[in-house]
Amino acid sequence: MKLLKTKEDMSALADSWHSEHLRVALVPTMGFLHDGHLSLIRIAHQKADRVIVSVFVNPTQFAPNEDFASYPRNEAADRELCKKEGVHAVFIPDAGEIYEPDASIGFTESSLSKVLCGKTRPTHFQGVLLVVNKLFNITRADAAVFGMKDAQQLAIIRRMVRDLDMPVEIVPAPIVREADGLAMSSRNVYLSTTERKDALCLRQALDMAEKAWADGSTSAESLISDIRKMISAVSGAAIDYVEAVDADTLEAVSTLRSNTLVAIAVKIGKTRLIDNIVLN
Amino acid sequence: MKLLKTKEDMSALADSWHSEHLRVALVPTMGFLHDGHLSLIRIAHQKADRVIVSVFVNPTQFAPNEDFASYPRNEAADRELCKKEGVHAVFIPDAGEIYEPDASIGFTESSLSKVLCGKTRPTHFQGVLLVVNKLFNITRADAAVFGMKDAQQLAIIRRMVRDLDMPVEIVPAPIVREADGLAMSSRNVYLSTTERKDALCLRQALDMAEKAWADGSTSAESLISDIRKMISAVSGAAIDYVEAVDADTLEAVSTLRSNTLVAIAVKIGKTRLIDNIVLN
Repeated sequence: MKLLKTKEDMSALADSWHSEHLRVALVPTMGFLHDGHLSLIRIAHQKADRVIVSVFVNPTQFAPNEDFASYPRNEAADRELCKKEGVHAVFIPDAGEIYEPDASIGFTESSLSKVLCGKTRPTHFQGVLLVVNKLFNITRADAAVFGMKDAQQLAIIRRMVRDLDMPVEIVPAPIVREADGLAMSSRNVYLSTTERKDALCLRQALDMAEKAWADGSTSAESLISDIRKMISAVSGAAIDYVEAVDADTLEAVSTLRSNTLVAIAVKIGKTRLIDNIVLN
Repeated sequence: MKLLKTKEDMSALADSWHSEHLRVALVPTMGFLHDGHLSLIRIAHQKADRVIVSVFVNPTQFAPNEDFASYPRNEAADRELCKKEGVHAVFIPDAGEIYEPDASIGFTESSLSKVLCGKTRPTHFQGVLLVVNKLFNITRADAAVFGMKDAQQLAIIRRMVRDLDMPVEIVPAPIVREADGLAMSSRNVYLSTTERKDALCLRQALDMAEKAWADGSTSAESLISDIRKMISAVSGAAIDYVEAVDADTLEAVSTLRSNTLVAIAVKIGKTRLIDNIVLN
């Protein structure tokens, strides 16, 4: 496994693979890898001849009041996990390698980023688009794998690839959960023992949604109402949003249908967790 | 010479060239080709094994009050000229091929686009960035040639390539002029016989600038003042701007130095013309 620290080295390696007609897949991460990330790596192996994992806690997607400084990091463990998973290259740029001091190009997204997490994180997705666009270019990615837990991020990245005609296949990866159902997230380490139990309400609410859909319910309004009631009964949980939207356009639906994304964001103590399910 | 109408066909052809290890250069144009464009094509041939010319009058870089509808077009002549110049592929997308109806991704540029033409055309460069980014992706360009007449556009495209780590070499091409010195532009056809004569004041002003620099003048303020006086003496000419800036950062300079861009924009009747010189 190669360890690359600079954009130049990363691009040169990817170019050499392309010159041998090898297909390259990228798994972009912020590190502190867990089984969710490992599942992305395994999917990447199925999609390409060479797998790159990038590890970069991207400052431009954190607002000043968010957890950039405290975001968990463990580079040595990340490298070890990547090696075990047969990753061909890990790209871990130093701070300052990615952004020029006088950088002046940015992205706007006028539709998908205005709902769900975008309401409370108004600059987050601009930062995500910028870093992902750069990483696609630096790694010459032919494919890139994104977890479905970040359903809005997935929809927005797909939109960028479509609207900019980027030659990258976006591969969605199913949510990976702990044994008790909590969706894996690097931020789960923030949870105390009590909060860890409270956090199960997200999955329980989505189980209810899945069952209601299977039982023939079609009213988004009553489903959202039931979910809000269930989560509100947990004293340590504060709802940010509960929404039912089209998984591609993120437009609210009133009648549940196939490809409806039921997405929730809940604060458990100080930790904001998201989870979702796509009905089909 | 191949004629491509769809993004899909254009990308497939470029991919096939890349799989043969052929280097691809793009000359992006809005058509109505003149000798200036042909010089870009000849430079492209020096930079790559395969040359693509795109012909697309891009609506997103025109403001509602500008000349999108009346912009001169002559597709048959453009194709003939490209053929004569040994162009390998002409990409002429139909209207509607380039932009999805619900496109939502856009660009911002927070520095270089705020000066010079950006002051009177505040959305122009966002539109340029969007279409150029897409064309680079669609054509898989390894290199792209841009005329130095559009000096601000060149600086902003270079900034985009740097800030997004795009794997494209940006090649600047010297300004090509008519026998009497007028910089070639598709918009020159708008000029009446009288206006055509008045338009020579741009080049005359730049000749004066070059001479002043050669004679050892270093005051940007007095040079700008002299240029304004010279152009103001032409009754049919209305100055938009006369500026001396760094050619890369576009920041105003007070002392003329190497790499100073002396840029002027003048309305001759209803036609807005630009011209410039880089001191060295």
